[in-house]
Amino acid sequence: MPEFELDFDKAGGLIPAVVQDDETGEVLMVAYLNREAFQRTRETGRMHYYSRSRNKLWMKGETSGHVQEVREIRVDCDLDAAVFRIHQVGGAACHTGYRSCFHRRLESEGALTLIEKDKVFDPAQVYSQ
Amino acid sequence: MPEFELDFDKAGGLIPAVVQDDETGEVLMVAYLNREAFQRTRETGRMHYYSRSRNKLWMKGETSGHVQEVREIRVDCDLDAAVFRIHQVGGAACHTGYRSCFHRRLESEGALTLIEKDKVFDPAQVYSQ
Repeated sequence: MPEFELDFDKAGGLIPAVVQDDETGEVLMVAYLNREAFQRTRETGRMHYYSRSRNKLWMKGETSGHVQEVREIRVDCDLDAAVFRIHQVGGAACHTGYRSCFHRRLESEGALTLIEKDKVFDPAQVYSQ
Repeated sequence: MPEFELDFDKAGGLIPAVVQDDETGEVLMVAYLNREAFQRTRETGRMHYYSRSRNKLWMKGETSGHVQEVREIRVDCDLDAAVFRIHQVGGAACHTGYRSCFHRRLESEGALTLIEKDKVFDPAQVYSQ
């Protein structure tokens, strides 16, 4: 059987990843993986990403300890995007301390409303070391 | 109040959109919006995208009639991605006829398993006209 291949060439070596809470279905974040990040994610069972701003591979939780354990990977019809259903250690995926990076709703008149009540952790504490 | 602005400049004028079924929470597709697609989506309440391959704005469902009605828009912490919770007219978001573009699971040994039982529509019929 030929090895499965995602189409990393379509967008400059990266595919967008939708990270979804495996228990609640909530979308927690969107990030990017290059070929190496995808390979390490599959090998380790922990989410690895490629940072476009820092130009480097990183493991989610390497500083905070809040790693993401992969439960299931789904790929799309064009093989140029993936959904990762995960368990979020520590309970929050966002570096701001909220559970989801998508914690604000855009109202029709243009205002942003916070839809998560409380932060799960204090970023100043988690990222201080 | 200053007008709300997404960061379209970060990735060449486009933001990735996660399209999620508002009732089930299922991730249906990932697509891209430029500033104009985002504006039209907000104005009309129907999803508009920017096609990278065809270099043009398009409305989802313009050929098939399977439009996507926006129920809620969420933006992320960096304002460079959005989740659109929608109602999918016709029941399927994928051009292949499946409900979700993410209808295949990647198994640990590299095989792809179909996780949706049946197609919702026959693409040959829907896109024949």
